[in-house]
Amino acid sequence: VTLERPLITLLTDFGTEDTYAGQMKGVIAARCPDATVIDLTHAVRPQAIEQGAFLLETAVRAFPAGTIHVAVVDPGVGTERLGLAIRRRRGDRERFFVGPDNGLLSCVLPDGCRPVSAGTVPLPDGVEVVSLELPTSRLVSSTFHGRDVFAVAAARLAGGDSLDQLGSPVHQMIALAPFEARASTPGVLEARVIHIDRFGNVITIARASQFTAPPRAVRLGSTRVTSFVRTYGEGEGVVALWGSSGYLEVAEVNGNAALRLGAVIGQAVEIELF
Amino acid sequence: VTLERPLITLLTDFGTEDTYAGQMKGVIAARCPDATVIDLTHAVRPQAIEQGAFLLETAVRAFPAGTIHVAVVDPGVGTERLGLAIRRRRGDRERFFVGPDNGLLSCVLPDGCRPVSAGTVPLPDGVEVVSLELPTSRLVSSTFHGRDVFAVAAARLAGGDSLDQLGSPVHQMIALAPFEARASTPGVLEARVIHIDRFGNVITIARASQFTAPPRAVRLGSTRVTSFVRTYGEGEGVVALWGSSGYLEVAEVNGNAALRLGAVIGQAVEIELF
Amino acid sequence: VTLERPLITLLTDFGTEDTYAGQMKGVIAARCPDATVIDLTHAVRPQAIEQGAFLLETAVRAFPAGTIHVAVVDPGVGTERLGLAIRRRRGDRERFFVGPDNGLLSCVLPDGCRPVSAGTVPLPDGVEVVSLELPTSRLVSSTFHGRDVFAVAAARLAGGDSLDQLGSPVHQMIALAPFEARASTPGVLEARVIHIDRFGNVITIARASQFTAPPRAVRLGSTRVTSFVRTYGEGEGVVALWGSSGYLEVAEVNGNAALRLGAVIGQAVEIELF
Repeated sequence: VTLERPLITLLTDFGTEDTYAGQMKGVIAARCPDATVIDLTHAVRPQAIEQGAFLLETAVRAFPAGTIHVAVVDPGVGTERLGLAIRRRRGDRERFFVGPDNGLLSCVLPDGCRPVSAGTVPLPDGVEVVSLELPTSRLVSSTFHGRDVFAVAAARLAGGDSLDQLGSPVHQMIALAPFEARASTPGVLEARVIHIDRFGNVITIARASQFTAPPRAVRLGSTRVTSFVRTYGEGEGVVALWGSSGYLEVAEVNGNAALRLGAVIGQAVEIELF
Repeated sequence: VTLERPLITLLTDFGTEDTYAGQMKGVIAARCPDATVIDLTHAVRPQAIEQGAFLLETAVRAFPAGTIHVAVVDPGVGTERLGLAIRRRRGDRERFFVGPDNGLLSCVLPDGCRPVSAGTVPLPDGVEVVSLELPTSRLVSSTFHGRDVFAVAAARLAGGDSLDQLGSPVHQMIALAPFEARASTPGVLEARVIHIDRFGNVITIARASQFTAPPRAVRLGSTRVTSFVRTYGEGEGVVALWGSSGYLEVAEVNGNAALRLGAVIGQAVEIELF
Repeated sequence: VTLERPLITLLTDFGTEDTYAGQMKGVIAARCPDATVIDLTHAVRPQAIEQGAFLLETAVRAFPAGTIHVAVVDPGVGTERLGLAIRRRRGDRERFFVGPDNGLLSCVLPDGCRPVSAGTVPLPDGVEVVSLELPTSRLVSSTFHGRDVFAVAAARLAGGDSLDQLGSPVHQMIALAPFEARASTPGVLEARVIHIDRFGNVITIARASQFTAPPRAVRLGSTRVTSFVRTYGEGEGVVALWGSSGYLEVAEVNGNAALRLGAVIGQAVEIELF
């Protein structure tokens, strides 16, 4: 870790009505009092691994090299699924990830190394992964590895432990398909809604870098959006734009597009290129 | 900045379901790892500038001199509206504010310098304002200045940059009318509901300092509240009191006044003085 | 305080829609800039002292010795109820608590010292309590002791003040009955629902340490749960298990038990031992 102060982010589906996230921070503060801990969000829908993976992927780039990203959306907690700690190097910059082996941490893999549909993939150069050893004390709950395993691992990384000290190397991990639109009929890409934000902006998996020009239209349910704008304050009614994370969004100027269109996560989106 | 550790507060309408607030903190941590960042709230109603301005104004006084207050409720993001950084001096104490030029930061202005209704006003002594230059990198999103402009500016102030280094001086800003009741018919002041808190306390813009004695009655919809108390644990039923920020509130003892009375933000309130 | 950096936790019913929790942090940052402040939760149901006491009790053990735990669920704010600062010693480890004297801080007392039903109890060895003096300045609001009294006291403890400097010793405090199931008819324990978490897990006051073997069945309303598992990923349908804090929970595998069963806080739970 090359940061002046260790920096740890948390992304979970724990909510903030309970003390679960707070307990993770207690474990970290006990072991690494100097770490700064930042909440990405604790409002991933319960057990929604894919939404969690997307939110993690789009948030990570706001953080400096050396950051330790902990993510816990973990329907398999306490079963035989592995817990992972990951070091990703790009040049002389590195970043750490800690969480369950269920696809949530897919963003550590370059697009080209990710599967067509969720599954196990080999690790590329620059990605080192260990399977976390469970602490052997009685204190490991079988239902709360966020506190008892993942927060402990993050605090140890923050304190200077190496990956090797946390577990044994593994050579594959579970990954999700990249978030990107897929070619459908000629001139049309297919995508889907991956997230709806607080403003009702409908965020799709179609990535700006896939396009050389704004699309001609975006179809969501029975609505065909043809106004493509640069920012939420432009245009009128329902518009499409590139969101702040580089994905295609459908928004309503001075309104809530998701409510207006009845959009739901997972819904199909068709993008007409020309 | 005269604080031992730089102190930054955030107030936005971003919610905590998304990672937007977390991304702002990542940008700050990358540039000023020693800063303490405190959430005021991220639950301002989407685009509700006036509610945001009120919540900011009433929270600021709990923070020490030298604090940098970032506020983002920004329907005009990416349009030609200015982004501001402000230094307010009072004697040898100063405080910084960062956010869009849309009235949200009105509390930097003394009451006497604020307009009768929202509009542009000249700056009084002790208030210096610069219009933030957009970073010229491709990394500035046109939809998320909270992360790409305002968090960057706050981190630079926290790191010791002067206002001048962040942009060019401007000599006016947009301000809202002061939050205070207005004279209506003799013996009656008119106000409105500006916020409803989690307990259902109905908070009005009538300010304690406007009154020499408790009002005789507060009328909200069809309800006339005549019991004026000192604290939530006194009296019975629906009562009025001075809230912790110095504004008139209507509360229900062991209940939720907003639900009981069907109160909504913006609703008219009539205050009978005698 | 023996921690490298002072560590303060906050548990309140203030919510995060308002700036109340943020204001508490401002007061702490002003007086003790080096303190790390961690939110346990601010989502205790308004005025729900018992739920708050349970959430505090189950979260505290994740924090290191020396931590200062502030809890504010305070229907009696501004009345004659006392505000407390508490030091609890166990061997050479100590922990501090700050909050109102209404049972919320009951976890400072060993089970054997807690009453059969809520009431005033004498203090055992190792528990020192002072009644907080109200700061005499005009700045103490009668409705927000979280900011004006409790945050100030926590910051002073964090800064090295002793208990004695904060107020006068008292020799009793209000406590709730321990959270544990009670013997009912032979072979049956009676408990109740104390909390429902974000996943819909129904958490009861029956404590794992009361049992030598998993119960034969758990009855909640018209449902009799007979499948006892180790973790949420095991079994099918509605199951019972020991939760991460050591209390009996009813959960639904890949579902939401509270919604499925219509469970509510306070509801009776019957546990068949054999």
